[in-house]
Amino acid sequence: MIKAGILGGGQLGRMLLQEAANYPVETWVLENDAGCPAAHLCHHFVKGDIRDYEAVLSFGRQVDCLTIEIEHVNVEALEQLELEGIRIYPRPATLRIIQDKILQKEFYARHSIPTAEFHIIRSAAELASHHAFLPAVQKLGKGGYDGRGVQMIRRPEDIALGFDAPSVLEKLIPVKKELALMVALNNEGEAAIFPPVEMVFDPLLNLLDYQLCPAELPEKTFWKAEAIALSVARNLQSPGLFAVELLMDAEQNIFVNETAPRVHNSGHHTIEAHYSSQFDMLWRIMLDYPLGNTDAILPSAMLNLLGEEGYKGRAVYEGIGDCLAVENAFVHIYGKEETKPGRKMGHVTIISKERAELLHQARKIKHTLKVKGTESIK
Amino acid sequence: MIKAGILGGGQLGRMLLQEAANYPVETWVLENDAGCPAAHLCHHFVKGDIRDYEAVLSFGRQVDCLTIEIEHVNVEALEQLELEGIRIYPRPATLRIIQDKILQKEFYARHSIPTAEFHIIRSAAELASHHAFLPAVQKLGKGGYDGRGVQMIRRPEDIALGFDAPSVLEKLIPVKKELALMVALNNEGEAAIFPPVEMVFDPLLNLLDYQLCPAELPEKTFWKAEAIALSVARNLQSPGLFAVELLMDAEQNIFVNETAPRVHNSGHHTIEAHYSSQFDMLWRIMLDYPLGNTDAILPSAMLNLLGEEGYKGRAVYEGIGDCLAVENAFVHIYGKEETKPGRKMGHVTIISKERAELLHQARKIKHTLKVKGTESIK
Repeated sequence: MIKAGILGGGQLGRMLLQEAANYPVETWVLENDAGCPAAHLCHHFVKGDIRDYEAVLSFGRQVDCLTIEIEHVNVEALEQLELEGIRIYPRPATLRIIQDKILQKEFYARHSIPTAEFHIIRSAAELASHHAFLPAVQKLGKGGYDGRGVQMIRRPEDIALGFDAPSVLEKLIPVKKELALMVALNNEGEAAIFPPVEMVFDPLLNLLDYQLCPAELPEKTFWKAEAIALSVARNLQSPGLFAVELLMDAEQNIFVNETAPRVHNSGHHTIEAHYSSQFDMLWRIMLDYPLGNTDAILPSAMLNLLGEEGYKGRAVYEGIGDCLAVENAFVHIYGKEETKPGRKMGHVTIISKERAELLHQARKIKHTLKVKGTESIK
Repeated sequence: MIKAGILGGGQLGRMLLQEAANYPVETWVLENDAGCPAAHLCHHFVKGDIRDYEAVLSFGRQVDCLTIEIEHVNVEALEQLELEGIRIYPRPATLRIIQDKILQKEFYARHSIPTAEFHIIRSAAELASHHAFLPAVQKLGKGGYDGRGVQMIRRPEDIALGFDAPSVLEKLIPVKKELALMVALNNEGEAAIFPPVEMVFDPLLNLLDYQLCPAELPEKTFWKAEAIALSVARNLQSPGLFAVELLMDAEQNIFVNETAPRVHNSGHHTIEAHYSSQFDMLWRIMLDYPLGNTDAILPSAMLNLLGEEGYKGRAVYEGIGDCLAVENAFVHIYGKEETKPGRKMGHVTIISKERAELLHQARKIKHTLKVKGTESIK
């Protein structure tokens, strides 16, 4: 039985472990929080810091292969483990590129992958010299996640809001649509591509509101998006799963926004809406089985369940029954003990032939299914 | 968060727990074997005997609701727990009927549910008096499972093979088809019925060889089967999931063979082939959510992976990769440490629009996917 480890024990680890139970694999999770969503679904839970060299090294030495559910892990330990023969998805060299948005941007440029024009910024002083480049968005090289470490710099006055740290200043693209494409690459370099999803963001929380699959795109734009995503994944030179976030402007130009070399929020709908899910796919890759079928069974909408504004403490769910009364709506609650405003507490996938039905149900569920908490906050 | 317990930690518990992780439920498993398929997928594993009064009682007192993955559990403890307000799926009174094939047969007769003609037999001597009733099948009242406790009595000479114990002697029905129908009943008595499956048995092992869904039946026979299965479930007067095994003769008469008041081998295909699986459905019932959609996404074939003849010891899997190369074939390995001939070690579901494709792939996989063991036995 192959031994597989996951760095991180959040919802992505949880859903990976739900699928792992289909295969002959013994599972390990490394995570600081023993009450995390994945802790009770693995064979071996190890309490420890995924950013700590020694913790990752000794964890990794117990297994045959390793994956991550978050990029912020100790990559030096992974490099050592790779030298010792542990298979790592994605490879540490790939992770190094992804971990630092500066390296990631340079990677796109080096491989002629279309991405927003940019400057590498080392300090606030340097930032101030780019008046003419605005409007732009500044992204911290390291440490950003889920909307943190990103600052809009629309006008010269906004420069004062910027980060005084190594970062990327990207020219703001007039976005018509945000897309995401998931690419699977196995150990032999064979690829499977999931259909593109189209995302709608909540401007307040800067977190995904809901997404649709497949994205509505002209055929040529679809091909272009697919080719770009495949090029990103192939040039990262690692087997694994790659979620490529794309931006499309009004002229249907496609730009890579960023890439996650792992299972990803934009692939949650694949659990019910596709023959092989992103989680199934990663196990197929890690266990060296043939790639799965990425086709959609039916079109889908997926919405994240975020902790309601005004609440914290132990999570209290409202409206799950109403949501499950909707035909072919599927609920995933991540089992996080504590809620807080905007925290990802679960998601819902709806599948239907009718796009209008998907939108209607997604909006309805968004307004009836709530994650509140035992404590009020103002 | 609702607390739910499962009596038994085999593959059914394992697949229940894979689905449980979609919902806000804290899970407990009671099972003697700490290396069982479900042990690592629950929040709380309790080592103990599901047939022991004290073990079941103290286990059950920790939870809000309980279910079973095998009938042979201590029903007296469940009755006490029910008195104390624990919700039990199925109700202990129902389980009493099912646990004893004599009571089960009398139940069918009492409710005018068509079933093979029968005599209640108390001893070998009594059995000998039923020459004229042969060919028949003798089933032990208690203790039979997976082909054990069942004896064919075709001719008077076979009477010597019979059990000297309380049992049912059933007239042998000239079976044209074996069917199974899964009925879900929620706490309010609302029903949802999964499409019928058609089963093919391996005469050697008396275990399921493969099954097809939906069964090929004339519409009227389909309606009749559905009505009979629903009548069985309703008259058992308990919420829960009910797998009703049916026999059809050449004249398309339908007879109830037996009923399992739980998730069941005949419903495994629902994981990939139906919108709501049997496992999802039981959680919806236990957590008081609306019933799911029982419709088939696509027709399916399901085959059990049995431990290969000639092997025991640690399980060794052959051909999983070949199987997963088949489009829309899904593998479930149960993670049992030890194999032995005929042991259920996993299953495979194939989904396809084409029935001929299903049969072709099921047979091919049956001959390439093998569960062998580290020790040879003759």
